[in-house]
Amino acid sequence: MVPTLRADVRYFEVADDGHSEPQGWFGGGADLTPCYLFEEDAIEWHKHWRGVCDKYSPDLYPRYKKWCDEYFYLPARQEHRGIGGIFFDDLMDFSDLPPPPSPSPSTSPTPPTPPLEFVQDVADGLLDSWRPIVDRRRSLPYTPQQREWQLVRRGRYVEFNLLYDRGVRFGLAPGGAIERVIVSAPPLVKWSYRYGEPGEEERRLVDVLRKPRDWADETD
Amino acid sequence: MVPTLRADVRYFEVADDGHSEPQGWFGGGADLTPCYLFEEDAIEWHKHWRGVCDKYSPDLYPRYKKWCDEYFYLPARQEHRGIGGIFFDDLMDFSDLPPPPSPSPSTSPTPPTPPLEFVQDVADGLLDSWRPIVDRRRSLPYTPQQREWQLVRRGRYVEFNLLYDRGVRFGLAPGGAIERVIVSAPPLVKWSYRYGEPGEEERRLVDVLRKPRDWADETD
Repeated sequence: MVPTLRADVRYFEVADDGHSEPQGWFGGGADLTPCYLFEEDAIEWHKHWRGVCDKYSPDLYPRYKKWCDEYFYLPARQEHRGIGGIFFDDLMDFSDLPPPPSPSPSTSPTPPTPPLEFVQDVADGLLDSWRPIVDRRRSLPYTPQQREWQLVRRGRYVEFNLLYDRGVRFGLAPGGAIERVIVSAPPLVKWSYRYGEPGEEERRLVDVLRKPRDWADETD
Repeated sequence: MVPTLRADVRYFEVADDGHSEPQGWFGGGADLTPCYLFEEDAIEWHKHWRGVCDKYSPDLYPRYKKWCDEYFYLPARQEHRGIGGIFFDDLMDFSDLPPPPSPSPSTSPTPPTPPLEFVQDVADGLLDSWRPIVDRRRSLPYTPQQREWQLVRRGRYVEFNLLYDRGVRFGLAPGGAIERVIVSAPPLVKWSYRYGEPGEEERRLVDVLRKPRDWADETD
């Protein structure tokens, strides 16, 4: 009943020729993949990330929420991997973004904030955003049929990672380290031909994976 | 203890514009993926397929054996998927191949054989090539550790199919049917970080997967 958390923050730096100034950028994000949908969790999760983003610009959360939905998508299943969160990459500065609202109209416009601070906020908020959800769900009972559904859904997770994830492709390139990439694969996974959704609760999840919702605008 | 059999024969036909003559070709093959290596099985398996191929040309088996080894390879693991067999594709005719040895030097050279007959021989031989191996291995006892090794090895099978197999990529294209592709995924699979080879028998298998052997030339 606990949704899977995937999250990272990263900094890459490259120099083409060793002479010119190296270019660096941030990437990262956090998203949840539940087997059973608890709307309360989805709403709380997205509101948390909207709060982190809104400190920097009101444009940030809608942009990174959409990016997350688009990135974690399995075309062959016509399903998103989970209920999303935020995702960003190639982040060098925020100069194209409108600033957050100033405390009062008389203060001077906020200078562009270096993205490092934003990325640190994302990293610092990771566990706090997930832990309350874990605490609410970890002791819930589950049936053998629900465990089976979990193992089948984990198959989708593997499918996304191996078929579509560009981080995985990157890790498999010469010089990559497959064990560090495949560590994201769940410990036990089932595939079953045309398994479908056995019941109402499973269909509720898949409906949401087919059509992402604006959780941060909803109330529980 | 029974090796996984993967096999198919297929005929594709395309016409680019609907006016010109359609072009057709055969593809197919058969290969084995064991979790534990029985050299006797590998030798018998490869001798079977050399026998099928040699009816048409002595060049066929070496070519298709090599193609099989090259196709079923996981670069990120530096392992072949299994102990191979034969693999062929884009097969339109055998006109570039030397014919099989004539019964006597006085007969006229064999005319090129249409590949349909070869492909039918491959299909007809599939079950006969595998069944004796199944019969020898199906009742062997196994330990929980050996079962665990099987589940871990199945992970490699999934990795190959999702990361590298072009048949899978084809099936995932628009208009494809993912359930008909993913049906090749084993029912239960384990991933375990840096699992390695727990013992001597597991190392023997992986040695062979790292360095394919000319089984048809070996004697048991």
